[in-house]
Amino acid sequence: MPQDHRTITVSLTADPYPILIGEGLLGRLGSFLIERGFQSGTRVLVVTNPEVQGFHGAEALTGLESSGFVVRTLVLEAGEERKTPATVAAIHDAAFAHRLERSSLIVALGGGVVGDMAGFAAATWLRGIAVVQVPTTLLAMVDAAIGGKTGVNHPGGKNLIGAFHQPKLVLIDPRVLVTLPEREFRAGMAEVIKYAVIGDEQLFNDLEQAAERDPRGALASREAMGPELLQRLLERSAAAKARVVAADEREGGLRAILNYGHTLGHAVENLSGYGTWLHGEAVGLGMIAAGDIAVAMGLWSQADQDRQRRLVAAAGLPMGWPALDPDVVLTALQADKKVRQGKVRFVLPTGVGSVTIRDDVDPATIRAALAVAASNVVFR
Amino acid sequence: MPQDHRTITVSLTADPYPILIGEGLLGRLGSFLIERGFQSGTRVLVVTNPEVQGFHGAEALTGLESSGFVVRTLVLEAGEERKTPATVAAIHDAAFAHRLERSSLIVALGGGVVGDMAGFAAATWLRGIAVVQVPTTLLAMVDAAIGGKTGVNHPGGKNLIGAFHQPKLVLIDPRVLVTLPEREFRAGMAEVIKYAVIGDEQLFNDLEQAAERDPRGALASREAMGPELLQRLLERSAAAKARVVAADEREGGLRAILNYGHTLGHAVENLSGYGTWLHGEAVGLGMIAAGDIAVAMGLWSQADQDRQRRLVAAAGLPMGWPALDPDVVLTALQADKKVRQGKVRFVLPTGVGSVTIRDDVDPATIRAALAVAASNVVFR
Repeated sequence: MPQDHRTITVSLTADPYPILIGEGLLGRLGSFLIERGFQSGTRVLVVTNPEVQGFHGAEALTGLESSGFVVRTLVLEAGEERKTPATVAAIHDAAFAHRLERSSLIVALGGGVVGDMAGFAAATWLRGIAVVQVPTTLLAMVDAAIGGKTGVNHPGGKNLIGAFHQPKLVLIDPRVLVTLPEREFRAGMAEVIKYAVIGDEQLFNDLEQAAERDPRGALASREAMGPELLQRLLERSAAAKARVVAADEREGGLRAILNYGHTLGHAVENLSGYGTWLHGEAVGLGMIAAGDIAVAMGLWSQADQDRQRRLVAAAGLPMGWPALDPDVVLTALQADKKVRQGKVRFVLPTGVGSVTIRDDVDPATIRAALAVAASNVVFR
Repeated sequence: MPQDHRTITVSLTADPYPILIGEGLLGRLGSFLIERGFQSGTRVLVVTNPEVQGFHGAEALTGLESSGFVVRTLVLEAGEERKTPATVAAIHDAAFAHRLERSSLIVALGGGVVGDMAGFAAATWLRGIAVVQVPTTLLAMVDAAIGGKTGVNHPGGKNLIGAFHQPKLVLIDPRVLVTLPEREFRAGMAEVIKYAVIGDEQLFNDLEQAAERDPRGALASREAMGPELLQRLLERSAAAKARVVAADEREGGLRAILNYGHTLGHAVENLSGYGTWLHGEAVGLGMIAAGDIAVAMGLWSQADQDRQRRLVAAAGLPMGWPALDPDVVLTALQADKKVRQGKVRFVLPTGVGSVTIRDDVDPATIRAALAVAASNVVFR
C-alpha cells in the first residue's frame, strides 16, 4: 500500500498514540484499529450527529464492519446547548445497551461537541474505555480531537465538567470537509493561525504567502485553499498540538499556551450567548484583543500585530465584536476555569512563533483592548 | 509532636500519597493538608451525609478552618440508591457555587458512597481537582477510600459510571467508628478477612487467634476488639491495598485480586435488591462461595476453607443467602463489569495468603457453590 497519509505521534510516556492524516482514510478506519491492536469482534459504539451520519456514517460503518467490528451507531443532536450531562447519560445508556466491555471502544465521529461528549462518556464508562477521535470539522481536526480534553457544559460555564482521556487513535480525513459549511471552515482557521502565532513561524509565513498569492481568500475556504495546502496546515497544526500535549499532558504549565485567544474569546462567547459566535470566531477576536494587550504592554510590535490581524481577516473571520460592557467582561473573566487564586491569566504574543503567560495584566489595558475590538475596524 | 499515628504510602509513580492512620487525627486534617502542600486560604468543599455531619462535621470543620482553609460543607443523603449522576450534579453545583478552582479540593467525609460520589465529582470538575478521602466506616477505611476508584451507579448496574482518581491524602481516624452501627462494622470486617486470604497470612493468623481468644466475638464489634487490634487491622489492610494499587493502578491485572468474593457477591447484592445485603455481607458470602468453588476445583483444601468460614462467622457475618435461581445468578454474572469477552472471571484462593484468577469455572461448579450457600449452614 503506498504511503498515502502522514502519521504524527503524540508522544505521551504512558500511552502514545498516532494521528493519521490523509484523504480517504475514513473508509479504512477498521484496518487502522486492527493495526493499533484492537481485535476483530470488538464491540464499537459510534457516536455522531444527524448531519455527519447522513454524509459519512455509511463509510465509517463499512470501514469498521469490514474489519469485523461489531458496531452500533448512536446519532445525537450535538449543538453546544446539548453538550450536557444528560447527553452523556444517553451515551452511557447506549453503551449499556450495546454491552460495551472494558476492551470495547467508542468512536467519536463528528465535530468538537461530539468529540467532547463521546470522549467524556468513554472516560467515565466502566472507569474509562478506549475512545477514537474521528473529527469532521476543521476546528476539531486541529484542536479538540487531539490532547484528551473531554467534557460537557455546566449551567455555570462551558466545559466545567470533564476529564482528561487520551484517544487511542485520531483519524483525520480532509475529504470529509467537503460537507463542512464555509463559516465553520473559517472558524477552524482561527485555531490554525493560533498554532502559527504561538509556536510555528514557518506556518505563519506559509499562511501569509497563501493569503498574498490569492487575494480572493485562499484561507477562507477549502476549495480556494486546495488539498495540498490543506494537508500541510493539518499536519503542521496537529504536530504543534501534539508537541504541546506531549510536553504537558494535563495542562500543568506549557499547555496553557494553547489558550491563546481563549481568555477573552471564552468570555465574549459566553456573554453573547452560545451560538452567536462560533468558537473559532471568538478565538479569532480573542487573539486580536490579546495582540492589542501585548502591544500595549510593550511585549510585541504593532507591525506583528498588524500581520496577525491581516491573517485573521484573510481567513474571512469577523474582525470586531459588539460593544460589551467592560465591567461585565472583566467579571466574566473571573469566572473562567483558567483563573488561579483569583488572577486572570493571559497568553500574550512576544513575536511570531512565541508567547508568554502573564497574570498581571492591568484591567485598564484589558478595557482598552475591548474598546478597540468593539470599534470593529476591519483591515482587509 | 509525638509519633501518634502510622503513615502508609501508596507508591504510585506519578503521584504517591500517604494514608494516615491514628486515633484523633480528624481534628488535625488541616495541618496534614498544609504538610501535603495545600496552601492556607485554599477553598475546600466538604461532602458528607447527615449522620456523619451530626457526629463528626464540627470536628472536621474546625480542623480545616483552624489552618486557614475556606470551607463549605455539602450534606447529602448518601444511600446506595442516591449514588447517581444526579447527586454528582448536586456536588458540581456546590463546587460552582463555592467557586472551586483547579487548586481547590473536595474532602469526602463519610462511607464508601460519599467517597465514591465525591471522588467522582472531583475527578470530573474542571477535568479533575484534588480529593481527600476521610472514611468514616470500616469498609471505606480498608477498601473504598484507598486506590482511586470512584463512581456512581447506572440503572444497568453498580459503579458502571466512574473514573480512576487518586486522592491526595487518606486520613483514617478509628475514633470515628464509635458512631458506626455494629452491623456496618461487621460488614467492614469482610474486607479485612479478604486482605488476609488474598495476601497476608500473618493477618489471617492474627484474626484467627483473636477469634479464638474471645469466643464472644472479638471480630464482631469495635468494643470487643479494642483499639490496639483495630489499629493493627487498619494498618495491615491499608498496607495490603496500597501494595496492590501501587502495582496496578488501573486494574490492568493484579488489582483484580481485590475482587475476591466480589464476583458472586455483586451478583447476589444486585439480585436481592440494593439494601437487602450490606456490600461487606455480600462479599463475605461471595468469599465462602469462591472458597467452595476453589475446593471443588482442587485449588485449595477443605481445611483452609473451613478456617475461612470460621473467620467469617466470627466476624458475625451472615453465613448463607436466600435460595436464588441459579440460572438467574449465572445470567447476572454475565452482566458484571469484570466480564471480559463474555468470560466470567473468578478470584479463587489457593492457600491462606494467595489467590489465582480463573475464567474457566464450570457453570455446574458455580451452581453447586450456590446450592451450599443457600443451604445456610452456619459453622459457629
